[in-house]
Amino acid sequence: MSKQNLRAGLVGLGAMGRNHARVLASLDGVELVGVMDPAGDATGAARGAQVVATLPELLALGLDYAVVACPTVLHEEAGLALAEAGVCALIEKPLAHTAAAARRLVDAFDRAGLVAGVGHIERFNPALQSLRSRLEAGELGEMYQVVTRRQGPFPQRIADVGVIKDLATHDIDLTSWMAGCPYASVSARAVSKSGRRHEDMVAVVGELADGTMVSHLVNWLSPLKERFTAVTGERGCFVADTLTADLTFHANGAFATEWEALSAFRGAAEGDMVRFAIPKREPLLVEHERFRDAVEGKANDIVTLVQGLRTVEVAEVVLDSARRKTSLPLQSPHARNLAALTQRS
Amino acid sequence: MSKQNLRAGLVGLGAMGRNHARVLASLDGVELVGVMDPAGDATGAARGAQVVATLPELLALGLDYAVVACPTVLHEEAGLALAEAGVCALIEKPLAHTAAAARRLVDAFDRAGLVAGVGHIERFNPALQSLRSRLEAGELGEMYQVVTRRQGPFPQRIADVGVIKDLATHDIDLTSWMAGCPYASVSARAVSKSGRRHEDMVAVVGELADGTMVSHLVNWLSPLKERFTAVTGERGCFVADTLTADLTFHANGAFATEWEALSAFRGAAEGDMVRFAIPKREPLLVEHERFRDAVEGKANDIVTLVQGLRTVEVAEVVLDSARRKTSLPLQSPHARNLAALTQRS
Amino acid sequence: MSKQNLRAGLVGLGAMGRNHARVLASLDGVELVGVMDPAGDATGAARGAQVVATLPELLALGLDYAVVACPTVLHEEAGLALAEAGVCALIEKPLAHTAAAARRLVDAFDRAGLVAGVGHIERFNPALQSLRSRLEAGELGEMYQVVTRRQGPFPQRIADVGVIKDLATHDIDLTSWMAGCPYASVSARAVSKSGRRHEDMVAVVGELADGTMVSHLVNWLSPLKERFTAVTGERGCFVADTLTADLTFHANGAFATEWEALSAFRGAAEGDMVRFAIPKREPLLVEHERFRDAVEGKANDIVTLVQGLRTVEVAEVVLDSARRKTSLPLQSPHARNLAALTQRS
Amino acid sequence: MSKQNLRAGLVGLGAMGRNHARVLASLDGVELVGVMDPAGDATGAARGAQVVATLPELLALGLDYAVVACPTVLHEEAGLALAEAGVCALIEKPLAHTAAAARRLVDAFDRAGLVAGVGHIERFNPALQSLRSRLEAGELGEMYQVVTRRQGPFPQRIADVGVIKDLATHDIDLTSWMAGCPYASVSARAVSKSGRRHEDMVAVVGELADGTMVSHLVNWLSPLKERFTAVTGERGCFVADTLTADLTFHANGAFATEWEALSAFRGAAEGDMVRFAIPKREPLLVEHERFRDAVEGKANDIVTLVQGLRTVEVAEVVLDSARRKTSLPLQSPHARNLAALTQRS
Repeated sequence: MSKQNLRAGLVGLGAMGRNHARVLASLDGVELVGVMDPAGDATGAARGAQVVATLPELLALGLDYAVVACPTVLHEEAGLALAEAGVCALIEKPLAHTAAAARRLVDAFDRAGLVAGVGHIERFNPALQSLRSRLEAGELGEMYQVVTRRQGPFPQRIADVGVIKDLATHDIDLTSWMAGCPYASVSARAVSKSGRRHEDMVAVVGELADGTMVSHLVNWLSPLKERFTAVTGERGCFVADTLTADLTFHANGAFATEWEALSAFRGAAEGDMVRFAIPKREPLLVEHERFRDAVEGKANDIVTLVQGLRTVEVAEVVLDSARRKTSLPLQSPHARNLAALTQRS
Repeated sequence: MSKQNLRAGLVGLGAMGRNHARVLASLDGVELVGVMDPAGDATGAARGAQVVATLPELLALGLDYAVVACPTVLHEEAGLALAEAGVCALIEKPLAHTAAAARRLVDAFDRAGLVAGVGHIERFNPALQSLRSRLEAGELGEMYQVVTRRQGPFPQRIADVGVIKDLATHDIDLTSWMAGCPYASVSARAVSKSGRRHEDMVAVVGELADGTMVSHLVNWLSPLKERFTAVTGERGCFVADTLTADLTFHANGAFATEWEALSAFRGAAEGDMVRFAIPKREPLLVEHERFRDAVEGKANDIVTLVQGLRTVEVAEVVLDSARRKTSLPLQSPHARNLAALTQRS
Repeated sequence: MSKQNLRAGLVGLGAMGRNHARVLASLDGVELVGVMDPAGDATGAARGAQVVATLPELLALGLDYAVVACPTVLHEEAGLALAEAGVCALIEKPLAHTAAAARRLVDAFDRAGLVAGVGHIERFNPALQSLRSRLEAGELGEMYQVVTRRQGPFPQRIADVGVIKDLATHDIDLTSWMAGCPYASVSARAVSKSGRRHEDMVAVVGELADGTMVSHLVNWLSPLKERFTAVTGERGCFVADTLTADLTFHANGAFATEWEALSAFRGAAEGDMVRFAIPKREPLLVEHERFRDAVEGKANDIVTLVQGLRTVEVAEVVLDSARRKTSLPLQSPHARNLAALTQRS
Repeated sequence: MSKQNLRAGLVGLGAMGRNHARVLASLDGVELVGVMDPAGDATGAARGAQVVATLPELLALGLDYAVVACPTVLHEEAGLALAEAGVCALIEKPLAHTAAAARRLVDAFDRAGLVAGVGHIERFNPALQSLRSRLEAGELGEMYQVVTRRQGPFPQRIADVGVIKDLATHDIDLTSWMAGCPYASVSARAVSKSGRRHEDMVAVVGELADGTMVSHLVNWLSPLKERFTAVTGERGCFVADTLTADLTFHANGAFATEWEALSAFRGAAEGDMVRFAIPKREPLLVEHERFRDAVEGKANDIVTLVQGLRTVEVAEVVLDSARRKTSLPLQSPHARNLAALTQRS
C-alpha cells in the first residue's frame, strides 16, 4: 500500500498492554511507534517500538492514536492528556474508575472532535458477535432473560478497583449491547472476603428497559473459571462461552420424552441443540481493526465513550445497591443524554 | 417382625402420588391400606391398596399416617382433616399455597400433638446430604455464597401455584437447611411469559442472617433441565447436581498455571477437583423411612411443619419483592418463634 | 378391542426378566399369563401373572409366545422346548452360548415355521434408530469407521459367558445392522483379570465387507460406564450415546479457526455440531411392540434368529482371534446363507 | 551467570519450527544464533537470530546444538550433517521417515559420541508426566489396558508421511514410556480416504511384552479433536487429556448405587473421581530445558535416539499389519539391543 501507516502508541505494558503490543505490532496499516511504561520493557514486549517512561515523551513521537492500558485509576489523566494533544484514543475498560471521571473523558474527546473508544473486548468475541446477529434476526423470538457468569481465581495483578468495576463492567456492557436496551433497575449483594479493599464477589438481578430480566454472578473467589452468557426466550436458549468462543442454541422441546427413566434427567421434552460453526477470529485483533478503521474515517462499529460511560454509571449503581442492600433504578439514559446535549450546546 | 405394621394412606395419585405409592407399597414396617383420588386409579398405581374417592372414606380405613400429595391448594383442607382425625401426616412441598394456610397447619398438628412433616425431598438427595455433612465438618471453611439453578421445560401437569411456590421452595428450603441459617433479605425479578396465570421465571439475590450471599435462578421456560447447587467459600467450591446425585469439590488453586495457553482457559491456578463416591439411595425412600421412624417415635430427622412454613413465608416475600421490584427483609424467625411460643402457651 | 389378546409367557425373573415382566404386563394386545422361574417371585415382579417353577408348567398355561430371559447357557434348551410346543419366542441376546446351539435354534424355529426373534435391544435405542435412518438417507456420505465403547463396573449378576458373548454381541449386532454390512475380518486382544473364568476385557479391530473400519472396546473392569457409538465418514462424525439416547452430529469444518489460542484446543476448523431432538421411547417397549406385531403377522422389523446366529458366530471368531492373537476372516455370510438355503429346500 | 551460553541453531521455520524459535529465544543459558529455512523468515519468527538458507551456512555460525524441525523425510540428511559436524541435535518426531534412516541416525550420533534426542513432546505434557509418576508409585496396581485416541481435522500442512508415522508415533512412544515396556504384537486396520497418498486413519490393537492390552485410534478425518490416554488397571482408570493437561483418576466403586434410576446411567457402583492439581508448565519448554541440561552434561531425562528408533520400528510394523490385515509380532528389543551393543564394541 502506498498509503501512509497510522502512527500508534501504547500506554502501559502490563498483562493486557503486552497483548495490545503484540496485536499493534502486526496490524495492517498501523505502525507501533512507541510504548510508555514507567517500569520499562523487561521482556521485549514492545517488539522493536521505542520504549519511554512518560506520556510527554510518547506524545513527542507524533501519534495518530494511542491505546490506553495503564491501571484504571490512571485512565482519566492519560485520556485527558491525549485529547489535549489531539490524539485519538482506544481506552481499556472500564473507561474510568468513576462515572465522574468517565464523563470528563467523554466531554474532552467530544470537544476535541477526536475518535475515541473503549476496549470492551467481550463484544468482539465471535460467540457474542454471532449471538447478537441471531437475536437481531429474530431467531429467539421474544427475549425473556439474560444470565451471565464471570468467575475464576484471582489473577495476580494489581486490582485498583473492585470486581464490579473490573469484571462486571464486561457483563453490563455486553448485556445492553446484545439486547440493544439499557438497564432500568438493579438489586445487588456483594462481599469482600479476601482481605482486599474492594468487593470481590457480587450477585445482581435487574431488568432492562424493555422488561428483560437480568442476572449476573461475578467474582474473583471461585476456583472454577467461567465466562458464560445465556439468553432465554420464546424459542429456547442461547448459550455463549467466551473462553472457547462457542455459541450453542437449545431449541424448545419438539418431542415429549416418553421414556420415563430419561425424562427425569433431561426434562419433559427436548428440542435440537446446535453448536454453531462460527468463524473464530481473535477478539483483540477485531477490536483493533475496527478502531483503526474508525480513526481512518471508515464506517466502523466501535464501543463509544458514551457507551463506556453508561456502563460505569450502571456499575456505580450496582455498587450502591450492594452497599445499601436495596433495589435502585437507573436514571433514564435518554434524560441524561438530553441533559448532556443541552449542556454541550 | 412380630411388630404391627403402621397403616398408611395416600391422598392423591398424580405424578408424585404414584411415586409415593410405589415407595409406600414396599416400605418395611408399613402397610399401604388405602389411596384416595377422585379420579380413581386407571394405571394400577395403588398396587393392591384400596382406592377411594373421598377423604372420609380414606380415614374410615383406620390410618396411623397419611401422605398428602394432592394439588397444593388442597393441602390445607386435607391436612386439617387429618389432624382433626388424629392422623399423622407427611405433606408434599410446598406445605401450603399461602403462609397463612401453612400457619394453620402448623397450629393444627401442634395442638393435636401429632407427628407431621413436609416432603422437601431435595434435602434427602445423596449429594445434598453429603454436602451438608461436609459443610458441618468445616471442609469449606467460611461460607461465602450459595447459588442454585432449577430450570427446565414445563412439566405437563396442573400448576395451581407459580414457579416460586412450586419450584423455588426447593431452593429456599435446601439453602437454609444446608447453611443452617435463615434468610435475612431478598431481591427478586419475575416474569410470566407462557400465558399462565402465575410467574414462570424468577431470579433472586439475597443474604442469609450470617451474611452469606444467595442467588437463585428458577424457571419453567428453559429447554435445559438443571438442578444445580454451588457453595463457594474459603477453601473452594462445592457443586451438587441433584439429578445425578453428584457432589464435586473444586479446591482453590494449589499450583499457578504457568503454561499461558492453558491459563487463559482454566484460570490462573488450579486445585484438585474431586467427585465424591457417595452411597446413592433413592431420596424418596429415605424421606419415607425417616418419616416412618418419626411416627414410630424413634429419633428422626424430618422436615418439620415450622420449617415448611418458614419456606412458604420466604417464598411470599420473594413474590412480593418481584412484584414491587424492591429488596425486602425477612422478619426474624427468632422473633416470630418467640411470638409463636408465647401464643401457644 | 374385541380382538383376543395374545397369551404371553416369560422364562426367567432375573434383572432383565423383571424388566420384561413390567413391559409385558402393560403391553397393548397382550396378556402376561405366566412366569417361570425356579426361584419363584420374591418381589412381586410377575405383576399378577401366575408364577411356575418349570417350563412344562408354563407351557401348560397355553401360550402364543414366550420371552426367554434365563441364563444364556439355558437359551437352547428353553428355545427348543418352545419350538417343539409350537410357541413363538423372543429370546434374549446372545441367542445362545455357542454358535452351534444358536444354529440348532435357527433350525428348530425354521422347521416349525414359528416367528422367533432375538432381544438385541440396542437396535431399538432411539439414538441408534435415528442414526441408522440418517445413514440410509446418505447424511454422512461414505462411511469410513465405526467405533464402539461399552464398559463399566461389573454388574453383580451371574456371568455364564464372558464379556465378548455377553456384551460385545451388542456391538457386533448394532454395527452390522447399522452399516447394513457383515464383518469381513477381526483382530482381538482379551484378558481375564478379575478371577472370573471368562475374559472380562476385549479390544477388537476389524473391517466390514464394504471396507469400513471397525473398533470395539468392551469390558467389565472400568469404573466409567459408557455406551458409545461413533460413525465417522465423508461429511463428519455421528456420535450416539445409548445411555441417554442422544445422537449428535459433528460436521466437518466449515470455517478455519484463525484464533490461534483456540485452534490448539479445538482443531484447525470447526463445523456445526447438532444434537438432534428425537422421540425417545423406551427401547424395551419398542422391541416388544415389534415382536407382538410380528406374532400377529403384521409387517415387522424384528431381529431374526439368523441375524442372532451371525452375531454369535462373529463373537466366536473374536474369541478365537483373541486366544490365538491373530487376525481372522469371517466366513462369508452369503456363502453360508446359500448353503442354508440349499439345505432347507 | 558468568557461564558461557550454549549456541543453538534451528533447522526449519514451519509451524513447529516457529514454536521452537519462540522457546529457544528465551531459554536460560542458551543463545539462538541462527535459523535455517530455504523459504526465509517472512513473519519475524526468528526473533533476531540470523536467518540462512542452507545447512552449511547454519553450521558456519558455530553451534553447540541444533533443533531439527524440517519435514520428516529430511531428518536423516540434516541429522547426519550435524553429527558429521560434531553438533548435538534435538530431532523432531518421528526420528526419521523409515526405520532404516532412523538406525543410521542412531549409529551416526553414537559413533560421534554426541548428545542427541527426539522431540516426542507428549512425554513432557504435565498430564502424562504425572500419570507416569503415579503408575510408578503403584497407584493403579496391576495395569490392564492402555487406550489412546488422537484425532482431529487435518492440519493444513505438508504431510510427507501418513498418519501412522506422523501422529501414531506419539501414541507408540508415550505408551511404551509410560508402561515402561516394549510392544510385543500389533494388529491394525488403516484406510486412506481423503485423496492423500498415505493412510489417514488407523485403528490398532496390540499387547506389550508384559501382557498389557493396547488400543490406539488415530486419524486426520474427524471433526472432533481429541488427545486422550486412558490406563485401566486393578484400582480404577486414569484418564489424561493432553490438550488441557488434565489428569483424572476414576477409582473403582466404593459404594453400590442402590438408586435404580441412577445405576442405569452411571453403573452398578461408583468410586471417587479426582482431577489432580498438577503444575502445568509448557511441554515444549520442559523438553528444551531437559535437552539443554543434557548437552551441558547434567543429569537428564531426554528421549534417546534408540527410543525414537524403536518407535519408528513399531510404526512400520503397524503399517505392515494394516496392509496385510494380519497380526504381527515385534522383534524383541532386547535381542536388537544386544546386537547393537555387540556392534558398538
